[in-house]
Amino acid sequence: MKVNGKFFRSIWTDENCSQVNIIDQSILPHKFEIIALKNIDQFCDAIVNMKVRGAPLIGATAAFGLAFALQDNASSTNEEAAAQKLINTRPTAINLSWAINRVRNEIKGATNENKSRTALMSAQKIADEDIQTCNDIGNNGLKIIDQIRSNNYSKTINILTHCNAGWLATVDWGTALAPIYKAFEKGFPIHVWVDETRPRNQGASLTAWELSQHGIPHTIIPDNTGGHLMQHGLVDLCIVGSDRTTATGDVCNKIGTYLKALAAADNNIPFYVALPTSTIDWNINDGINEIPIEERDPQEVTTISGINADGIFQSVTITPKGSRAANYGFDVTPAKFITGLITEKGNFPASIAGLKQIKSLL
Amino acid sequence: MKVNGKFFRSIWTDENCSQVNIIDQSILPHKFEIIALKNIDQFCDAIVNMKVRGAPLIGATAAFGLAFALQDNASSTNEEAAAQKLINTRPTAINLSWAINRVRNEIKGATNENKSRTALMSAQKIADEDIQTCNDIGNNGLKIIDQIRSNNYSKTINILTHCNAGWLATVDWGTALAPIYKAFEKGFPIHVWVDETRPRNQGASLTAWELSQHGIPHTIIPDNTGGHLMQHGLVDLCIVGSDRTTATGDVCNKIGTYLKALAAADNNIPFYVALPTSTIDWNINDGINEIPIEERDPQEVTTISGINADGIFQSVTITPKGSRAANYGFDVTPAKFITGLITEKGNFPASIAGLKQIKSLL
Repeated sequence: MKVNGKFFRSIWTDENCSQVNIIDQSILPHKFEIIALKNIDQFCDAIVNMKVRGAPLIGATAAFGLAFALQDNASSTNEEAAAQKLINTRPTAINLSWAINRVRNEIKGATNENKSRTALMSAQKIADEDIQTCNDIGNNGLKIIDQIRSNNYSKTINILTHCNAGWLATVDWGTALAPIYKAFEKGFPIHVWVDETRPRNQGASLTAWELSQHGIPHTIIPDNTGGHLMQHGLVDLCIVGSDRTTATGDVCNKIGTYLKALAAADNNIPFYVALPTSTIDWNINDGINEIPIEERDPQEVTTISGINADGIFQSVTITPKGSRAANYGFDVTPAKFITGLITEKGNFPASIAGLKQIKSLL
Repeated sequence: MKVNGKFFRSIWTDENCSQVNIIDQSILPHKFEIIALKNIDQFCDAIVNMKVRGAPLIGATAAFGLAFALQDNASSTNEEAAAQKLINTRPTAINLSWAINRVRNEIKGATNENKSRTALMSAQKIADEDIQTCNDIGNNGLKIIDQIRSNNYSKTINILTHCNAGWLATVDWGTALAPIYKAFEKGFPIHVWVDETRPRNQGASLTAWELSQHGIPHTIIPDNTGGHLMQHGLVDLCIVGSDRTTATGDVCNKIGTYLKALAAADNNIPFYVALPTSTIDWNINDGINEIPIEERDPQEVTTISGINADGIFQSVTITPKGSRAANYGFDVTPAKFITGLITEKGNFPASIAGLKQIKSLL
């Protein structure tokens, strides 16, 4: 998608594959900086410190990370160590281990000389396929928006989204935002309500930035606001992403997603989850009880960063000294609150039957 | 309640009633400053800019404001103008007009000489009665906490609250926090989950500060977190305040309250609203459609204030330049999601029948 009128991916290699380039998402929207990653520590740091984030992009980054680790040392011991190190960077997203396992499968049997080159090609393939997947998610989601549009062709369609499941969370297009980009390209009258998504404000910083760079009308709202908007007919549709989807259709996504799904259900507003099928964890049936929820540094709650009046990047403490804070990264939305799953294979109900249908197509 | 070990009210006059003192709540928890209010403009400024906030405290402040306006000019024209000016400072809280009307009723027939003194006594009475009311709310709410405690005397009782309905929102004790202070005084093992309450962070700044000053265990959480905690059995009870309560039991409170009520209902967790009966608007039956919801400056969403690493108070912008923001101050929680209303007259169901019972006691 576009940044200052120029097309970008969120991750790309230079011509001779000597480094991987990413956009430092931890300082957006205030600064646009490209960082080079060359060794396993840099890749791990980029994931842990959320310079890259979003399940699909984390997967692609980890795949490149493994390839670069093998460039340095292609031994099985190092392969195992690098794989574990990358998988351990973030516990919730399933794409991380999915991508690592895929690369490892593809380099099985390769000589030590060929391992890193094969791994790099595999990582590149993961990135390229992700773009195709997100493109297909966009087209499938577009059908849902088009259906809503058919009720009244002149009315603006208000779509609420949580966190950032845009092109920055993937390699391009995004998951939840892909249908929105497609609708915008078609000239549909759309407007996006952007949940700011505390504590890390991926909505207010990344989704809002993406949409404004691409020229899509949007309004940032505190996470508390969505219910009120839904009660007053100001939301036609919710679309969010997923970090892990169970075989029963439960969705683990950024903390707070569940609350919006409850409000959508209470107000009869369609609540869709857009996801690549790679986020499905076929081994899990009960999202609430089986998915590990990452607890992050409480400092992400007690401090916040932005630009002061002099244009200087500052972190400020917003809580009293004597107060503790807790920082859970995700929550689980039970399948019963989800209208449907938008995937690259089509749109399906969030249910055991729907997931079986998806499985039959993989 | 206590600040640095010393007891305070949130509003008080000096000995000769030449000024009204308030704690500047707009700079808590970073600075503790007392401001003097002497004329109508200062009173209005304190309410508009949320140096004082919380329905009961707004009411008391407005009552004092009218008394001081009459000190300067006791004419009927000025009385009417001052009353309107004060009522217009914030549109949602019903206590504002309730307090103004009460003072005006009590000065009816008074000579111009006596008007201001009578008004001042009336304002003082409103403040004193508010303390008694909140004390009674505390004792009535304590019964509910005690009931939960009786299930397991050694287990910590986890109470979730939204925004600040503590002593800072009233004259003393608070509404939602009064039962918590009472339980703490009784030595019950309690812990409070404090919703940070974006965009103005009254939870993270005021509730957390109140509780830490008083020594009550608590943890600040992003507004997105409560649903996850409830799904995992980490919340035993929710108590929130109310800015306006309808004759049918709907509750208008800080934006985001509705989302927590939905999560509590989905997880069978009791959701109580603590309120003085003065917040009941007997003329309103449908909270969602009839209560005006204040829209505040979007800058409260796009910027946030805190203390930087050098201890300097700073405001930082957290959103992209090209993005709009919306800032609705309140939402309405339908009565069906509310387990009960805790009032100074006792605890009642949030229903037409419950409200009729309350009315019969007034």
